[in-house]
Amino acid sequence: MALIVQKFGGTSVGTVERIQQVAEKVKKFRENGDDIVVVVSAMSGETNRLIDLARQVSDDQPVPRELDVMVSTGEQVTIALLAMALIKRGVPAVSYTGNQVRILTDSAHNKARILQIDDQKLRADLKAGRVVVVAGFQGVDEHGNITTLGRGGSDTTGVALAAALKADECQIYTDVDGVYTTDPRVVPQAQRLEKITFEEMLEMASLGSKVLQIRSVEFAGKYNVPLRVLHSFQEGPGTLITLDEEETMEQPIISGIAFNRDEAKLTIRGVPDIPGVAFKILGPISATNIEVDMIVQNVAHDNTTDFTFTVHRNDYQSAYQVLENTARELGAREVIGDIKIAKVSIVGVGMRSHAGVASRMFEALAKENINIQMISTSEIKVSVVIEEKYLELAVRALHTAFELDAPARQGE
Amino acid sequence: MALIVQKFGGTSVGTVERIQQVAEKVKKFRENGDDIVVVVSAMSGETNRLIDLARQVSDDQPVPRELDVMVSTGEQVTIALLAMALIKRGVPAVSYTGNQVRILTDSAHNKARILQIDDQKLRADLKAGRVVVVAGFQGVDEHGNITTLGRGGSDTTGVALAAALKADECQIYTDVDGVYTTDPRVVPQAQRLEKITFEEMLEMASLGSKVLQIRSVEFAGKYNVPLRVLHSFQEGPGTLITLDEEETMEQPIISGIAFNRDEAKLTIRGVPDIPGVAFKILGPISATNIEVDMIVQNVAHDNTTDFTFTVHRNDYQSAYQVLENTARELGAREVIGDIKIAKVSIVGVGMRSHAGVASRMFEALAKENINIQMISTSEIKVSVVIEEKYLELAVRALHTAFELDAPARQGE
Repeated sequence: MALIVQKFGGTSVGTVERIQQVAEKVKKFRENGDDIVVVVSAMSGETNRLIDLARQVSDDQPVPRELDVMVSTGEQVTIALLAMALIKRGVPAVSYTGNQVRILTDSAHNKARILQIDDQKLRADLKAGRVVVVAGFQGVDEHGNITTLGRGGSDTTGVALAAALKADECQIYTDVDGVYTTDPRVVPQAQRLEKITFEEMLEMASLGSKVLQIRSVEFAGKYNVPLRVLHSFQEGPGTLITLDEEETMEQPIISGIAFNRDEAKLTIRGVPDIPGVAFKILGPISATNIEVDMIVQNVAHDNTTDFTFTVHRNDYQSAYQVLENTARELGAREVIGDIKIAKVSIVGVGMRSHAGVASRMFEALAKENINIQMISTSEIKVSVVIEEKYLELAVRALHTAFELDAPARQGE
Repeated sequence: MALIVQKFGGTSVGTVERIQQVAEKVKKFRENGDDIVVVVSAMSGETNRLIDLARQVSDDQPVPRELDVMVSTGEQVTIALLAMALIKRGVPAVSYTGNQVRILTDSAHNKARILQIDDQKLRADLKAGRVVVVAGFQGVDEHGNITTLGRGGSDTTGVALAAALKADECQIYTDVDGVYTTDPRVVPQAQRLEKITFEEMLEMASLGSKVLQIRSVEFAGKYNVPLRVLHSFQEGPGTLITLDEEETMEQPIISGIAFNRDEAKLTIRGVPDIPGVAFKILGPISATNIEVDMIVQNVAHDNTTDFTFTVHRNDYQSAYQVLENTARELGAREVIGDIKIAKVSIVGVGMRSHAGVASRMFEALAKENINIQMISTSEIKVSVVIEEKYLELAVRALHTAFELDAPARQGE
């Protein structure tokens, strides 16, 4: 008999019919003898409806505390509906808001962090044979104010509850049946991964595989909560995300290929090569609240250097202006930019124990005549920036080169 | 500087525009230097939408505990919106759910009763110059379960808060500008009452003047909370409801004429005049959960008596059947019934100190050739049952006879 925390997102509980399907699913688990805690989001569309109402009365700037009072009602409706649907099916159930559980958070409204979870009530209910339905995304601060964890925070609620209850598994139900080696829309031979480590998942997630909220993966890694990504309405084992690296030894060195085309590249050329120049360039960018992703500075040449970094495409124009000012101040030669770029990364803990992974990547790209504009590496990841039009070609080439293509389809 | 509790119902906060109007109104009071606690209902239509969702997942029988979790979100949305609208207008404000205030109730879900209100937070907020916006209709039981007071319970929340805070006045904003001497649709000369006592208001309310929830008036009377009925979006003094009888001495003996046509009359004739016969007749009616309003039994005649009572028209058919069975068992002569009746009542604390009020009523009806079928009296009320078609005529005649017609229109 296992203790399982199951999280269903807004689409999975988007209609009365879907809530009933979720109830059926939970019932089956219960009948297998497992103890179940369900975490649900607001019905899809509901949070936006509430935020829209809030904007209407507050010139688009809702007071954060009151916005939390409002949007937290979204999940409150879903927990009650799911508890009702379970009880109607003969499954004893009880719903709790974040406040009722007591999911204690800090007071950072709209983006609060969980500090502590009181597991007393939940344990008593589980012991009494009840399914516990908890509102995701919300908590309460020490003064009794309602808080929310920010968008997607329901995943974090699920993982935090699983950690507090020392659950055997935290299952995140989504609209995909697991984590793939890469986006199947780009590479039809992409395969569902049976297992992936937290570290790899973090790299995959932050690089654009938006299956899970990054924060919830960090949280799961920190507390070693086995996390499983599953499809809400299809059967299947999904993908298990764990600490465990050993069993991946026999698997390919690379777990997956991540990519995104949300970035733009900026280069400041002919900057005097003096100490502190990196800060002089990036300081004004950060001060404008623009996040920088990749940063590359090569060795100096004639006492000047070229400095390149990437930002989100939405920030490209403002970053360009800031950089032009900096260029004038530093007496740099010029600023050039490019929004038609894409980032492709190979991710895998296998890199740690295998040499030559990066060169194998570069070789595969070279074979396709794809020029690499920037390179950045971490312990379990190699990222390159290439011209956007080569993105699909690059991803497919790498998927094949690292033997990730599904065997059944290899002959295609 | 007064402390005022203001309650706005679902229609008054039914749209974003109306919530903004309410915020403007509250702002004006605040600028006069008054301390304000606002109680709001769910936006009109919202509670029904939620109940409808609940029914869909639970075969029309939602679990009471979970239904409370759901419907309480309706007011939670409104408090946040109103607090936002106030803050946007430069009025410091904070919202509280029933649980956050701590409005402690019993555990009777969907129809809970308020046991205690913690006024600590509210007092601290008022002292800090904040308007406090409280969700009506809801509370929390000793175990932390969300409860609701049942339909219309927001009036009760307002009065209970006013009592707990020893407020100077509890203002109930509605779609009428006060309590009238009778329904202005029947008597154009009907006047708004400046004042009315709790007792009178209870008689008026239970007789069909549905301005206020009866429970809230009882509550206000019990704790002597001055209650004022006002129009949400029109200026005016409204009607004050108080304990105070003295100032009404100079006013007409009768405060108002109430009436309803929701009742039906049932008579069992020729019942043996023996002890316990009233119970034998009404016991089976009560056992069928039918409420009886007026009851009249006249002196016996030839050792038999006639027994008449009224029930709601919706219960007429079932009451008739029950009564026919009883008639057979008791050996009564016959059962007769009439649904084409109306009840008209004169209400006023002035009756206590004035003799001949009833006969003045009967005289006025006699002048119009209206036959009285039943009479029932209480300390501050005389009710008669008449044929339905004479209802308007009777009300107008009584309104004039008791000098309630508006002076400006008396010449009409």
